[in-house]
Amino acid sequence: MENRTESEKAKKTKGVRQLKARKLVLGIDIGGTTTSFGLVDRKGEMHARATIATEPKQPAKVLVERIATEVTEMTMGHSPKILLEGVGIGAPNAHYLRGTIEHAVNLDWGKSVNLVELVRAHFPVPVAVTNDANAAALGELLFGAARNMRHFMVITLGTGFGSGIVVDSRVLYGAEGMAGELGHTVVDPAGRECHCGKRGCLETYVSATGLVRTLFALLAERRGASALRAVSYQEMTAKKIFDAALAGDALALDAFDRTARILGMKLADAVAHTNPQAIFLFGGLAAAGELLLTPAKRYFEEYLFKPFKGKVELQLSGLKGDSGAILGAAALAWQEIAEP
Amino acid sequence: MENRTESEKAKKTKGVRQLKARKLVLGIDIGGTTTSFGLVDRKGEMHARATIATEPKQPAKVLVERIATEVTEMTMGHSPKILLEGVGIGAPNAHYLRGTIEHAVNLDWGKSVNLVELVRAHFPVPVAVTNDANAAALGELLFGAARNMRHFMVITLGTGFGSGIVVDSRVLYGAEGMAGELGHTVVDPAGRECHCGKRGCLETYVSATGLVRTLFALLAERRGASALRAVSYQEMTAKKIFDAALAGDALALDAFDRTARILGMKLADAVAHTNPQAIFLFGGLAAAGELLLTPAKRYFEEYLFKPFKGKVELQLSGLKGDSGAILGAAALAWQEIAEP
Repeated sequence: MENRTESEKAKKTKGVRQLKARKLVLGIDIGGTTTSFGLVDRKGEMHARATIATEPKQPAKVLVERIATEVTEMTMGHSPKILLEGVGIGAPNAHYLRGTIEHAVNLDWGKSVNLVELVRAHFPVPVAVTNDANAAALGELLFGAARNMRHFMVITLGTGFGSGIVVDSRVLYGAEGMAGELGHTVVDPAGRECHCGKRGCLETYVSATGLVRTLFALLAERRGASALRAVSYQEMTAKKIFDAALAGDALALDAFDRTARILGMKLADAVAHTNPQAIFLFGGLAAAGELLLTPAKRYFEEYLFKPFKGKVELQLSGLKGDSGAILGAAALAWQEIAEP
Repeated sequence: MENRTESEKAKKTKGVRQLKARKLVLGIDIGGTTTSFGLVDRKGEMHARATIATEPKQPAKVLVERIATEVTEMTMGHSPKILLEGVGIGAPNAHYLRGTIEHAVNLDWGKSVNLVELVRAHFPVPVAVTNDANAAALGELLFGAARNMRHFMVITLGTGFGSGIVVDSRVLYGAEGMAGELGHTVVDPAGRECHCGKRGCLETYVSATGLVRTLFALLAERRGASALRAVSYQEMTAKKIFDAALAGDALALDAFDRTARILGMKLADAVAHTNPQAIFLFGGLAAAGELLLTPAKRYFEEYLFKPFKGKVELQLSGLKGDSGAILGAAALAWQEIAEP
């Protein structure tokens, strides 16, 4: 606490509500820039929450200590007394079966760090970690739009492309705990370079960065005028393309259409694998809403194998933004307690 | 029985062994041309079997009656007495959740026929039906090479491309009972016409018919000599391409290599969905053995997302040929009895 910088304090946005329930879990959403966490009851109501800077250059141990300090502050002296039942963490490159974060691109935590052990040192309760997409899927299952569904899928569209698959009301982990890596299925084996070393991965087309790459491909292919021709690659963001599309920029609209086509096509393929009842879009790019969803639905239906046509809903997540990620992590904790 | 033709009698190949066990299930494998069935114990030992012509123009009811007559013959008067515990059926376009065969291309049974009801009329025991690939997966799980695996996949390579996915030791059915339709995931959205109405489906590339199509594409592209240039499309078979490849025909070898590349690439994608521990190849085209398997393994590893590399086995099925299909159907019956 004593080392916290002013900028970090500024980033911290805490809102403490009246703590009604005694039994709560701590849901933590770790991102490359900020980390949000909150105390959540079994019904998905958030009783307190905070956001701090992740400080990704510091070791994981430091982040965990800072979270622990905040949580102690949140809970101390509250009446009725809070019983912390468990901790759930959603993080990039998290490995549920091992309790680790491995080779996270945006966190300077090295090859592997056992986050579950670090958290248990502060909170002697059940602790589990999973990747953001799986956490989002659990949030959808326990608190969101999938409460009555046994088979569904959540796609997180942010900087990257994440996917969490639920089969028979449980997250599908598979043999290595790595099921649901749809971002690295192939769209074009001779296509765009991916940070994973392969070419043409879905993530290089359908993600915030994928949208930027598609826009630049269109700037090269087309001759039409666009406000976006004045923006460098480095300065370009999905948000700028979104704003341009809303303003009617033809190239920006086409970038969304191309993104939606590949998304729809690959989600149709995903249906042929696990036959979900619904697919939910979550995260930053999903916030583009109808601009992405409307064409994606059309392409999705077009590419679906006939027996699935009209039977799989494609919709936006029932959980909103940053609270959604905390609720997802909290859902993981509640599920761990129910089925240890 | 009285209406059986001479040619049908000739097709029937029955071998009755000494019946040791009392508790057996009937496994039935229905194909477009022939139907094989056998009495199988809990350990996967076949105690009697027969093969009859399917006569796909006749109603399903007639086939079921003919099977029932044969089975009665098999079991009657045997000592010790046989207790038929259940019936499992593997068939094209079978719908496990509904117990039906729907729109089967090679069977003239119309839109939908409830095979489970038809069989129950003869055998008042638990009866279940599933598609051939799911049956093969169950056979692999109970009696084959996947006995200690919780997560794996079986690919059936015959006239078409089938897939059965096992998650947590159970066949993955999904919301509509239709999970595992990988044959209709897309290789090229502008590619080959598929009987399903889409273009570029995996099945149009990787299957016996896909191999023939690939060979003809190569005959068009390349100038090299090939014995296969003398064969019409209608006369061409996967077996002829296999024989030519074994004899060193460059085009035939290349047709296998192209098939293996697409197979390896799409199986790498499948791993990113469900993260199986192993993938087993089963069926007619899989019998091409190393000619297909060796290059497929190489491409598979090449296209795998890094965290999966070296961790997923790609191998031939542990169940052989036509017995394998009966054992798979029998495995379905045993599983139904265990978990009704």
